[in-house]
Amino acid sequence: MNLILLESGELDGNVAVLSDGRARHLREVLKVTPGDAVRVGVLDGPLGTATVESTRSDVVRLRCDLGVLPPLPRVDLLLALPRPKVLRRLWPQLAALGVRRILLTNAERVERNYFDTHLLAPDVYRPLLIEGLQQARDTRLPEVSLHRRLKVLVEDDLDAVAQTAVRLVAHPGAPLRIADAVRSADERVLLAVGPEGGWSEFERAMLGAHRFREVGLGGRTLRSDTACVALVALVGDAMSARAEQAPVTSEPA
Amino acid sequence: MNLILLESGELDGNVAVLSDGRARHLREVLKVTPGDAVRVGVLDGPLGTATVESTRSDVVRLRCDLGVLPPLPRVDLLLALPRPKVLRRLWPQLAALGVRRILLTNAERVERNYFDTHLLAPDVYRPLLIEGLQQARDTRLPEVSLHRRLKVLVEDDLDAVAQTAVRLVAHPGAPLRIADAVRSADERVLLAVGPEGGWSEFERAMLGAHRFREVGLGGRTLRSDTACVALVALVGDAMSARAEQAPVTSEPA
Repeated sequence: MNLILLESGELDGNVAVLSDGRARHLREVLKVTPGDAVRVGVLDGPLGTATVESTRSDVVRLRCDLGVLPPLPRVDLLLALPRPKVLRRLWPQLAALGVRRILLTNAERVERNYFDTHLLAPDVYRPLLIEGLQQARDTRLPEVSLHRRLKVLVEDDLDAVAQTAVRLVAHPGAPLRIADAVRSADERVLLAVGPEGGWSEFERAMLGAHRFREVGLGGRTLRSDTACVALVALVGDAMSARAEQAPVTSEPA
Repeated sequence: MNLILLESGELDGNVAVLSDGRARHLREVLKVTPGDAVRVGVLDGPLGTATVESTRSDVVRLRCDLGVLPPLPRVDLLLALPRPKVLRRLWPQLAALGVRRILLTNAERVERNYFDTHLLAPDVYRPLLIEGLQQARDTRLPEVSLHRRLKVLVEDDLDAVAQTAVRLVAHPGAPLRIADAVRSADERVLLAVGPEGGWSEFERAMLGAHRFREVGLGGRTLRSDTACVALVALVGDAMSARAEQAPVTSEPA
């Protein structure tokens, strides 16, 4: 836990009184004493520091000095619902890497019973996302939505959430590299990652008809969680490279 | 399981008779019948296809036609021993991504009891590595070694395993990008990834004095497994980009 994340409702003015796992972490792992400073953030709000005012029995009282609102991630992920074990591992990692929206979808090669998992309940996945944010020192909770029909999502709903985004779909062996598909650091990117057996030919054609360009990640077939982490990292890296290349001022070069 | 991996000792001529989890996978998941072709590989040997000769009770008999030896991965990973839960998740992912050597090391911020885990026993991690190879359709089992003293590893032992490799060490916020640090596709890369709390200043200086250049991955602090997957993917991508840029012939441009 590299950051203590607070819900906005937990703040009374700039004071938060904690008595749960976060208080335990402060006392037992960080071993704080009154006067110590710790990193805090408000969920979907600003980052800052807090001064420990008191630690009494199992209660820690923090006085917060909040400042900067972290930027919203620019990457959205359209992910064919993976098997529960893989999804469980993905939740904290996606939040840690910085994903704005996670659109979970059905696909031909997604097994129907994957939709029955308790890992799709907000009260189960939300703490896992928060775990990832606390790891990465971010406050921006990814928005999660579930889509039972890929066709409806792609044909009818996607323009509302990602109209101007660069749309990429991962396909093993595709020659286009992510670094060459991302043109500027200001762009939004919507990245589609298929099920373990891949998208069907019909699905690939449908995605292609809706502006998704196929990008490769070498010839290896990776598990959904490995592939998502690798691909989101590559998109983030491509964006930061574009940011470096952009002129600092608006003066002509 | 995208590939059935055989130990070389399991082949009698070009015939293998399976009766374990692989036979069960062939019968129950792939639902093979005699005459079907399946992808096979020999551990640290060639890839190929096999024809199912018979499936009787729980035994599957395969006739193998082996061909190409997959290339050895060009990336080695020097990894501060992570906590057991994270290490368990990493084993299959590192094999799937393609890592030649995994050098696990102590560091100041590695907890001593991490060395007590059964996940460091070859008979525990070998099946996990094989799981990753079967996922990614590779036969090259990573070599694993354990180093109790980082100083001895870096100062005395590293030149023997990675004398000419480009040496990179991940450091949050370092300005150098992996894509700019990898100069050719033929290079070997040795990538060092620190413990959850980072390398100490002493360790950073020691690595720097032994040709490790610090590379960044944005400002986010990632868990060891997320960081390793992201970094190894970035190295692989940088190498494939260099391979594309390389002249096809030795003619002057």
